[in-house]
Amino acid sequence: MSRNRLDHLPCSLARALDEAGDWWTFLIVRDLLRGINSFDGFQSSLGIASNILSRRLVKLCDDGILSKRKDASDGRRMRYALTPKGEALAPSLIALMQWGDEWISGRGREPVILADKRTGGQLEPIRIRADGADVPAGEIEFRRGPGLA
Amino acid sequence: MSRNRLDHLPCSLARALDEAGDWWTFLIVRDLLRGINSFDGFQSSLGIASNILSRRLVKLCDDGILSKRKDASDGRRMRYALTPKGEALAPSLIALMQWGDEWISGRGREPVILADKRTGGQLEPIRIRADGADVPAGEIEFRRGPGLA
Repeated sequence: MSRNRLDHLPCSLARALDEAGDWWTFLIVRDLLRGINSFDGFQSSLGIASNILSRRLVKLCDDGILSKRKDASDGRRMRYALTPKGEALAPSLIALMQWGDEWISGRGREPVILADKRTGGQLEPIRIRADGADVPAGEIEFRRGPGLA
Repeated sequence: MSRNRLDHLPCSLARALDEAGDWWTFLIVRDLLRGINSFDGFQSSLGIASNILSRRLVKLCDDGILSKRKDASDGRRMRYALTPKGEALAPSLIALMQWGDEWISGRGREPVILADKRTGGQLEPIRIRADGADVPAGEIEFRRGPGLA
């Protein structure tokens, strides 16, 4: 797929897809959300080749989705963290995980249950809302926005 | 990326990413949400090669994300529609579009404004919630679910 072409579509979804780059981005963000934050950790979680993982981590840092710092107790080891921009990917990631639970894994066969650490309460299905009410997918209107040339 | 490898990760996100296949899926679902439903319509919206679009539409129908039927007034023309499984991708798609609005296009430069057709009310930012309260990304717990071998 032509990256440049996507980049020129006047749509924030296309731009987001272009920057998120490939599926590994979502899986690396998922791993960070569940506490994995080192190169070795990502590699054993994802079974991804070192060179691909390296390139992906550099790009994610360049794009401001991840930050990295030296490990406090071992200066040769880097630790990664989500920036606010990276954390802001969580709603789309969780929504996609819930879609996989419902439509692929199937209810009652969820490999992972997501909850609020603080209360133990299970996450609700992610919903599209306006004025406090649910909006069905078929009722969404796409209007020209201020950023459309 | 190895499709088989992703498919075997015990995670509904990995399975969802594997089935959604590539970015075109999201962009085709977006087009259907905004009323584009023909091969020619997708092609002019996306600037995608015919052979890639064809393959993608066949796969989306096979996966149960789209359905197709002959056009009522022109039997040589096919019209596509989202199935319930396809419509269920909307929350992750909208969340990703909002992420692009906020972190790439920038506030006040949104190319598209999303609203509820019925009320005109603008869509709220998609949120992660549990027990009616927002859950920050850093407070999400990943627990073993019933589908984990």
